[in-house]
Amino acid sequence: MENQNKDNKVNTDKSRNNNLPKVFLHGPLHGPPNFSVTILRPNPSHNFHILNPSSILPLQQFIATNPHHASSIAAIVTINLHPVNADDIRLLPSLRFICTPSAGTNHIDLSECRRRGIQVANAGNIFSADVADMAVALLIDVSRKISAADRWLRRQLHATSWDFPLGSKLTGKKIGIVGMGRIGSEVAKRLEGFNCMISYNSKNKKPLVSYPFYSTVLELATNTNALILCCELNDQTRYIVNKEVMLALGKGGIIVNVGRGGLIDEKELLRCLTEGEIGGAGLDVFENEPHVPKEFFSLDNVVLSPHAAVVTSGSFNGICQLVERNLEAFFSNKPLITPVI
Amino acid sequence: MENQNKDNKVNTDKSRNNNLPKVFLHGPLHGPPNFSVTILRPNPSHNFHILNPSSILPLQQFIATNPHHASSIAAIVTINLHPVNADDIRLLPSLRFICTPSAGTNHIDLSECRRRGIQVANAGNIFSADVADMAVALLIDVSRKISAADRWLRRQLHATSWDFPLGSKLTGKKIGIVGMGRIGSEVAKRLEGFNCMISYNSKNKKPLVSYPFYSTVLELATNTNALILCCELNDQTRYIVNKEVMLALGKGGIIVNVGRGGLIDEKELLRCLTEGEIGGAGLDVFENEPHVPKEFFSLDNVVLSPHAAVVTSGSFNGICQLVERNLEAFFSNKPLITPVI
Repeated sequence: MENQNKDNKVNTDKSRNNNLPKVFLHGPLHGPPNFSVTILRPNPSHNFHILNPSSILPLQQFIATNPHHASSIAAIVTINLHPVNADDIRLLPSLRFICTPSAGTNHIDLSECRRRGIQVANAGNIFSADVADMAVALLIDVSRKISAADRWLRRQLHATSWDFPLGSKLTGKKIGIVGMGRIGSEVAKRLEGFNCMISYNSKNKKPLVSYPFYSTVLELATNTNALILCCELNDQTRYIVNKEVMLALGKGGIIVNVGRGGLIDEKELLRCLTEGEIGGAGLDVFENEPHVPKEFFSLDNVVLSPHAAVVTSGSFNGICQLVERNLEAFFSNKPLITPVI
Repeated sequence: MENQNKDNKVNTDKSRNNNLPKVFLHGPLHGPPNFSVTILRPNPSHNFHILNPSSILPLQQFIATNPHHASSIAAIVTINLHPVNADDIRLLPSLRFICTPSAGTNHIDLSECRRRGIQVANAGNIFSADVADMAVALLIDVSRKISAADRWLRRQLHATSWDFPLGSKLTGKKIGIVGMGRIGSEVAKRLEGFNCMISYNSKNKKPLVSYPFYSTVLELATNTNALILCCELNDQTRYIVNKEVMLALGKGGIIVNVGRGGLIDEKELLRCLTEGEIGGAGLDVFENEPHVPKEFFSLDNVVLSPHAAVVTSGSFNGICQLVERNLEAFFSNKPLITPVI
């Protein structure tokens, strides 16, 4: 009797799942940032069915072995910033929604999504505070040589004196923020507490923002002691920090990147750091993650962070819930919680 | 003729110096914090004469070889927090002024100074912003594992994934400040930008401070996620953070010390960090500097800093000028710039 009940339940669940729209988890399980499989777990209350809850893999690989699913996938959740390009999208005639647990969407071919009428949701504002905290952390760390001093001190087994070089002052410095969106404005709010003088560059001057605006990153760099990159990566912002910008920032200047690696010409940055043409850098992102050019590892004027700005133990649950709520909303024909397009 | 002029000048200088009150630079040249000899250099415009401009050493050692100076020294400038105890003071019958280029004065026997009517000046407010910046830096660094992640990443020569443990959120946390003086209030101002909820403990409730006040550090620890120690070290504050306080702070709790090492029971702290009874610590000061117990060096939940909070390349010139201005004022019978007693 019990067995029969169990069998009935399994059959009912199976038939229910067959009728639900299909969601595919797209990405390598491991990669930067380190979002684990737990970002979306099956739940009987869902109005969708997760096709591959415990085996996250690239879409093309999944379809090659499960071709019958090509026409059934209605939504994709991207994991670890795995790209969704036009070829992926063309594989899925029923695709109507892509949800990314990230603020940035540069890994998704948005033009193709627009052309096909596919909706996209991102992480909205949920990471802004954590990313802003990290941006400020990297800025103080580079200025005041915190990580470098910690590394140095751990080697001083029998120190009789402490002759570590002085850091430079943060309070009162001129800080240029590139990208005055949610994250940029959270960074500005924090740095006001340090009496820093904020100015910014963004695609357009923001009518509600009172900080001085510079229409180019070059002008911003010329007039500030540090640049904090909080903008999106797209065709207009790729290599927005190039050799000219770094030279304008100058020997004492600091660059913090919590956006995307591709915002900076990484080879040129490495050269400027090595030759002392800028003062230092705090980097949470890199051009070719998880690869970090090994030449960075021997530099004391750089702080390296493994794409950790976006996520803390406190924000991870929030992002899991947000992905779930966006999917529930989409499949109930309600407005997305955090729509991109 | 030229030589005779030079001789005359030397004689005039010598006779002028003989008539000026004598200042002694007291301390070991090297030590924590790393204030070099340049803190006070001879200058013909001074209304005092520096006895030992290029050979900073302890007072007792100097007097042993120069006993005739015992009765001529009118002022002491302490270097590298070198102690001025009652025995030192008793050696110098003409001593009337002690100037320390530090905010804290726990290395000076203030009771003996009061008894003898010796005036004391410190660094006043000049370090407050830099120390507050460091306190916030250490707090974010421990919370978000910045130094630990940097160390980890530098070892990932051929990383294929980034599996470093998540940090914990700083924004919105409850922060307890111990010592709501100049530095404490600068720390509070900065942490408001992170939407932190501030409360504090100090000798007395401050009528002009609106943050919640706890009359003991134990209560403060019970009600907060992190303690930041910004208070003086004296008989009342020694080991103000003991085992009971650490257990009250709890497994996720963080301690930041930018005050003095003696504020914390260092052995107990080490045990709590090792056994996970508190979450982490950011330490700029230690009980027996420059010695740091080597057991700290293998811990990833601690950030170590070589007593670097007080000084940056930007504040060093300021402190040199302040020492000079206090001495000039004292020997002109004007009020001290930054009097302690």
